[in-house]
Amino acid sequence: MDKFPVVAQAGASQPNNIQQHEPSTQASAQGVASDFDVRMMQRCLELARRALGRTSPNPLVGSVVVQDGEIVGEGFHPRAGEPHAEVFALRAAGERARGATVYVNLEPCNHYGRTPPCSEGLIAAGVAKVVVGMVDPNPLVAGGGIARLRAAGVEVLVGVETAACEQLNEGFVHRILYKRPFGILKYAMTLDGKIATNSGHSAWVTNPSARGEVHQLRAGCDAVIVGGNTVRLDNPYLTSHQEGVNNPLRVVMSRQLDLPTDARLWDTAQAPTLVLTQVGANPEFQKFLQQKGVEVMELPSLTPDAVMSHLYDRGFCSVLWECGGTLAASAIAGGAVQKILAFIAPKIIGGSHAPTPVGDLGFDTMTQALLLERVRWRVVGSDCLVEGYLTAKNQ
Amino acid sequence: MDKFPVVAQAGASQPNNIQQHEPSTQASAQGVASDFDVRMMQRCLELARRALGRTSPNPLVGSVVVQDGEIVGEGFHPRAGEPHAEVFALRAAGERARGATVYVNLEPCNHYGRTPPCSEGLIAAGVAKVVVGMVDPNPLVAGGGIARLRAAGVEVLVGVETAACEQLNEGFVHRILYKRPFGILKYAMTLDGKIATNSGHSAWVTNPSARGEVHQLRAGCDAVIVGGNTVRLDNPYLTSHQEGVNNPLRVVMSRQLDLPTDARLWDTAQAPTLVLTQVGANPEFQKFLQQKGVEVMELPSLTPDAVMSHLYDRGFCSVLWECGGTLAASAIAGGAVQKILAFIAPKIIGGSHAPTPVGDLGFDTMTQALLLERVRWRVVGSDCLVEGYLTAKNQ
Repeated sequence: MDKFPVVAQAGASQPNNIQQHEPSTQASAQGVASDFDVRMMQRCLELARRALGRTSPNPLVGSVVVQDGEIVGEGFHPRAGEPHAEVFALRAAGERARGATVYVNLEPCNHYGRTPPCSEGLIAAGVAKVVVGMVDPNPLVAGGGIARLRAAGVEVLVGVETAACEQLNEGFVHRILYKRPFGILKYAMTLDGKIATNSGHSAWVTNPSARGEVHQLRAGCDAVIVGGNTVRLDNPYLTSHQEGVNNPLRVVMSRQLDLPTDARLWDTAQAPTLVLTQVGANPEFQKFLQQKGVEVMELPSLTPDAVMSHLYDRGFCSVLWECGGTLAASAIAGGAVQKILAFIAPKIIGGSHAPTPVGDLGFDTMTQALLLERVRWRVVGSDCLVEGYLTAKNQ
Repeated sequence: MDKFPVVAQAGASQPNNIQQHEPSTQASAQGVASDFDVRMMQRCLELARRALGRTSPNPLVGSVVVQDGEIVGEGFHPRAGEPHAEVFALRAAGERARGATVYVNLEPCNHYGRTPPCSEGLIAAGVAKVVVGMVDPNPLVAGGGIARLRAAGVEVLVGVETAACEQLNEGFVHRILYKRPFGILKYAMTLDGKIATNSGHSAWVTNPSARGEVHQLRAGCDAVIVGGNTVRLDNPYLTSHQEGVNNPLRVVMSRQLDLPTDARLWDTAQAPTLVLTQVGANPEFQKFLQQKGVEVMELPSLTPDAVMSHLYDRGFCSVLWECGGTLAASAIAGGAVQKILAFIAPKIIGGSHAPTPVGDLGFDTMTQALLLERVRWRVVGSDCLVEGYLTAKNQ
């Protein structure tokens, strides 16, 4: 976001960033959060993002230890199975953690899992105060870590930069609450609402800056899903196109497996590919794919929800739908999409039969339309990126 | 635009205004334009806008007379056949015009038309200086008024707020240069690119704020055009919905005249309606329309260009296309659209066969898409208004 500063002057030549309908989720902090607290929490989020796309099923967490107004230790959770952010930060601080204030974007855990509880670690290190961005999203355990700290005499401040903390881990939060990965539908369309020409050609709708944003977006997701049509028409890579960043699992949904043999997705050197199909589909092609290193799985019912359920079982938090309009409509109708990211390019392609981003949802009147919440419009290069959430009512 | 201030804080709850690709048409002023000059020119534009939609085929012009840093006279051109803005401003200033500075957004005229030349009036009033927003767009006469003033010893400063001056009179400028009215295609679509549901229902895509913008837009246009389908499906009013403001001529293009008898457009009490059709179409219905007070005209060829040519002959500067995708595509392909105003509502309606803003343009690959220039994205209520110009290359 800081790449797109808001400027106070209409007519500026710089790209701009506008935001509307800011979620009113910034809980009023218990106690008083200072500007310094806000800056430290933003630093936690920055640290947390270093592990983008690598922590599922765990959240992204960063932590900072401050002694006398100075950062004396930092850490982040690098991946599941490794220590939590607070542990790294306390280690870095060493003896200077005693009497210090520890910042962390998510409530410290209070249970023995693959690692001992962070609440105990903080108490043992003798910290004086803990500042927490947001409480644990699991209603069954929420507040437990905070209560343990308070019981041990540690001062706890909760609710600093909460909206940003919640957004960073929206996938993790959704996973905990709904037992499904968080679904993001991403598409790019022209200003006249087309994702391709009449003949299906779509390279490229958006400018390179917008495509760079898509690569970043993929880096933060555990899987990206397309249907057979996208494989046949676009032959995409679906990677993050950057050295050293996460590539999501590339998932293809195809009932018949009537797919080309030379698709880029069958090259699994850069990123893994999973093809989901129905029971008994095209055994020869299944064998071909497996020989290429592509994982193939038959599902009893090849629906968006069945796919999301399977991806939940794999421990995934965030899944990106980069499919065409038919599968997108099916994913929305099946409750597999919580957020929409639409790139709009200021160009006109025309086409009475050109494909559009979302196929049939069964609505007859405009009043039935699904309304987005917390909508943000942001200029990216020459295009606009619209971000919004499907309301719970729609799910 | 001043209704949508830019704020320097992302996450503000106010609507926001972003602008990109600002046209680089702001000519560097000859001489030095002060902040005061800019403010006075903005006042000229404000005065000019009071006659919005009423001056065609003439431009919108406002004028201010300043003596010792104080405004001593103001005026604007109210409609064709009445005196020009400078005349009203000089009259209001009276003797205080002598030695004064006169601001005017368009070069003063230098020829005898329905009124005597303003250049002579300014000279006769003894003004010391004239500040001009933009030169006359007609290449045959451009600069004549300025040259006459300079020859008479009046100091002239040209090119203050030029981009704003050019935009205010973009219809007039286009009319002069191309012998056609300036065409604006306006539509409202959902975030998934639909202007209606599969069944054609479209009330409402946008929110009331956006619809208010459309009413203002109509007030500034000389005509608004729809096709027969829009009459049948939407039964629109196409008025400005405000007391005391201009209502454009409502134009219907229909080959067969297979139109409903109870359309709102046949009620001409609030605004006039013109139906354009082909030679010999449905004489009975023609008679019915004429009895209702609707003007009917048969054109040898019912094309967008023939319609624009006819509206040029009527003295029109700006024409708003509010039609469906098929006619919109035909208007774009026929060079009858120079500017696009797209409202985008953050909602998803779905629909594989739902109508989209622009029908077939005959393009097979995405690289053929028509690129917009000078694109502005602006939030209006919960919707986004995208404004852009078709490039000359596309015309």
